[in-house]
Amino acid sequence: MSERIRNQALKSKVMTAEEAVQFISNGDMIGTSGFTGAGYPKGMPAAIAAKAREAQERGEEWAVKILTGASTAPENDGVLAEADAVSFRSPFNTDPKMRAKINEGKVKYTDIHLSELGMYVQEGFFGHMDVAIVEAVAIREDGSIVPSSAVGNNIEYMDAADRIIIEINEWQAAELEGMHDIYRMPMPGARVPLPIVSPGDRIGTTSIDIDPEKVVAVVFTDGPDRNAPFKPVDETSRAIAGHLLDFLEGEVTAGRLAYDRLILQNGVGNVPNAVLAGLLDSKFENITAYTEVIQDGMLDLIDAGKMTMASATSFCLSLDAAHRMNDDATRYKNHIVLRPQQVSNHPEVIRRLAPIGINGMIEADIYGNVNSTNVAGSKMMNGIGGSGDFTRNAYISSFVTPAVAKNGDISAIVPFASHVDHSEHDVKLIVTEYGYADLRGLCPRDRVQKIIAIADPEYRPLLEEYVEYASKSKARHTPHDLSRAFEFHTRFLETGSMKK
Amino acid sequence: MSERIRNQALKSKVMTAEEAVQFISNGDMIGTSGFTGAGYPKGMPAAIAAKAREAQERGEEWAVKILTGASTAPENDGVLAEADAVSFRSPFNTDPKMRAKINEGKVKYTDIHLSELGMYVQEGFFGHMDVAIVEAVAIREDGSIVPSSAVGNNIEYMDAADRIIIEINEWQAAELEGMHDIYRMPMPGARVPLPIVSPGDRIGTTSIDIDPEKVVAVVFTDGPDRNAPFKPVDETSRAIAGHLLDFLEGEVTAGRLAYDRLILQNGVGNVPNAVLAGLLDSKFENITAYTEVIQDGMLDLIDAGKMTMASATSFCLSLDAAHRMNDDATRYKNHIVLRPQQVSNHPEVIRRLAPIGINGMIEADIYGNVNSTNVAGSKMMNGIGGSGDFTRNAYISSFVTPAVAKNGDISAIVPFASHVDHSEHDVKLIVTEYGYADLRGLCPRDRVQKIIAIADPEYRPLLEEYVEYASKSKARHTPHDLSRAFEFHTRFLETGSMKK
Repeated sequence: MSERIRNQALKSKVMTAEEAVQFISNGDMIGTSGFTGAGYPKGMPAAIAAKAREAQERGEEWAVKILTGASTAPENDGVLAEADAVSFRSPFNTDPKMRAKINEGKVKYTDIHLSELGMYVQEGFFGHMDVAIVEAVAIREDGSIVPSSAVGNNIEYMDAADRIIIEINEWQAAELEGMHDIYRMPMPGARVPLPIVSPGDRIGTTSIDIDPEKVVAVVFTDGPDRNAPFKPVDETSRAIAGHLLDFLEGEVTAGRLAYDRLILQNGVGNVPNAVLAGLLDSKFENITAYTEVIQDGMLDLIDAGKMTMASATSFCLSLDAAHRMNDDATRYKNHIVLRPQQVSNHPEVIRRLAPIGINGMIEADIYGNVNSTNVAGSKMMNGIGGSGDFTRNAYISSFVTPAVAKNGDISAIVPFASHVDHSEHDVKLIVTEYGYADLRGLCPRDRVQKIIAIADPEYRPLLEEYVEYASKSKARHTPHDLSRAFEFHTRFLETGSMKK
Repeated sequence: MSERIRNQALKSKVMTAEEAVQFISNGDMIGTSGFTGAGYPKGMPAAIAAKAREAQERGEEWAVKILTGASTAPENDGVLAEADAVSFRSPFNTDPKMRAKINEGKVKYTDIHLSELGMYVQEGFFGHMDVAIVEAVAIREDGSIVPSSAVGNNIEYMDAADRIIIEINEWQAAELEGMHDIYRMPMPGARVPLPIVSPGDRIGTTSIDIDPEKVVAVVFTDGPDRNAPFKPVDETSRAIAGHLLDFLEGEVTAGRLAYDRLILQNGVGNVPNAVLAGLLDSKFENITAYTEVIQDGMLDLIDAGKMTMASATSFCLSLDAAHRMNDDATRYKNHIVLRPQQVSNHPEVIRRLAPIGINGMIEADIYGNVNSTNVAGSKMMNGIGGSGDFTRNAYISSFVTPAVAKNGDISAIVPFASHVDHSEHDVKLIVTEYGYADLRGLCPRDRVQKIIAIADPEYRPLLEEYVEYASKSKARHTPHDLSRAFEFHTRFLETGSMKK
């Protein structure tokens, strides 16, 4: 214990999660650490769920509001959702139990850009924050907090909350200390330029200074992050990644990119991982990343000497890769900076560094509007995450997806996106296993054929059929037939397939 | 002439527009000055239109591609559209003749965020630029160009073009010299922080240095900017402005704003103008603006001592106000900075300064998605302009509109926006003459009643009816009935009214 808690006063606050749950009350707004399955609290959520169950068994309503960095894991979102202990949740979530409650209308969910939530909480847009629960690897002599595998909104939540509960997770390598770059974003009126001109630039400290008086409990845990297993790259993902790499090669040929000047922003998922795998065997060198999360493929690129620096706000690693990190954190610290999500996703730095943005999506329409969040317009999948932060400001913003889902019953290319998260003004490139559609500079009608050409061959005639209807529109800038615009979706809802 | 052209070499390039049109060829890509009806070329467009007509009379196809800063005027977009002299146009346009050609499908139009076009042209996304035509008030001894009433994309276009034609407009006050702050945005890889921490901070020079060898002609003109007449504030606009000011007062009460700390971003139009008029009689003092255009109301606020500094990329003044500016430019220079649109609309500076964003719109849906561009999904109105640049990064992004248009036949609140330019993730406040809907922190279902409450009373039952259908959706995060989602629009297209 003494190595992990180096502050005398806070040593006296150590207790079990079951004891610490006394500081959580019905209706509390709780801000937690955690981002894409890393660095979330692993002890308190189960204790909160148990407290909710006890109250509910007494016939009382009992629920809390949960704000996180981004997605967490079964031990956090999962147990809380299962206990019906959550009335409100924001932002990004990937937990299936929480997703089910959101779509049943039992949990109110506000889906917001990841760069914005922290500041909006501080500004009071979400109401008063009662408690912050933050996973750490250590508490320093001065009482400052060394976060674990994610920084997320830890600063903003601890600053805004009345009470702070620290979870020290001894599973996380103590050597993560020094990897973080903690910068406290000033409020409007006091903001100054962020002096980051290269992904590895450090602008802050390595721990979060807090008011130690607010710490009501320190809880010890010892468990790994969610650490989703790393799926081997499949044929479709490899094909998509191949097309994206071809596009990047073309940019080098055009003189707009150089083999030693690639800066990546890489979303989470099979295709982005396949892109990282493809880069291992590419001509690109001295690759850097200004992105949200550190994935397995980045450790591979670092180990191979291909990637020199990656800036993110959290890990998103398989268990194998997490072990590699724990065993070798001191070396990886030379190549990785973990920042608050306000900084990792800041429009200022993204526009300046001009990374190539690569994000997944649910669907794109024939004019290039992209839906990243809602299936058939109504059902929340995960959320917008940081895709908006990056897409609006990256050098070239691309969206990657297999052309079909659900054994071919869902087409990723549709006549009209059933929810628009990224508008036609923002989307520069769409990539499927059938190729890439380079939309730069094109007017809406000139995008249509490029986008249909990368749809699944079975859906191309149906899309052409819609273009035919739409072409009867008197207004010919973005021709639509609004009476049929959602026919792919309504057919899917009625028959289980977008096919005719 | 000698006062306006102080460079000896360039004096020899003076000629008429009819002579200078020799440097324009069929298929050329032309980048022009001009932003919201200010600072556009007033001599060359008619000459280009005449050249197109002559070629067409010989049976030849003849057209050019036109890129501007934003909207221009009848003497530019109007004459060119009328002569069918344009094959491609970007960005933002308000000219009715150009709009008609775009919607007939005769002019390809790419609608892009105003902060992005200049850099995308330099990066070659739009192809090779042949000619830049830029209005100026003077050419300095060193050959550098002093822009007139708009900076727009002048730097990027002159840098990218093979040939440059300067129009010296003697109508524009020579005393505008010194008002501009010219900063050349470095390409990716060389960008550094923009050291603007207050709207008036200057980071550049007062003229644009160019390669004088590229100047093929200097043309003299003598005419006013478009200078749309200033419409007196009507009752609806006053009501909307009043609600917005009430909201701002509420923010002061909540401690999130101070009477001496208001920074505005104000779109163009009657309602934004009414807001400026309302501020004249408000408790706000030391108002500043970090915005796109200088409007009449800002001159009034400056004259009244209420506004201390306004940063923009152009004027958008009535003829009266333009005369006031011409007569008094030396004084106004203390309170106005005109920047390149890459800087006036830069995400970095907007997120840092955190203005209150106020933009008009065509429609919003019940969940807060906003359409700024396409009527009934297909017909281009003007374009996205800078609304996206500001909305994604302002402190509080608001959209203002009368609740109905076309004598009540079009509702500004609809079940599903027929084009989405600003997603539910971005829109914080919607204001009509019936009040404001404060959407901050709310989940989609909690936004619905707030938004319907500010719809026109006649449309509220129809919106409630849709909510009733939509509530049958199994997925309850953002309930929609996609088979009816566009029924307001299809009814309008069939009957001429969204009413039942």
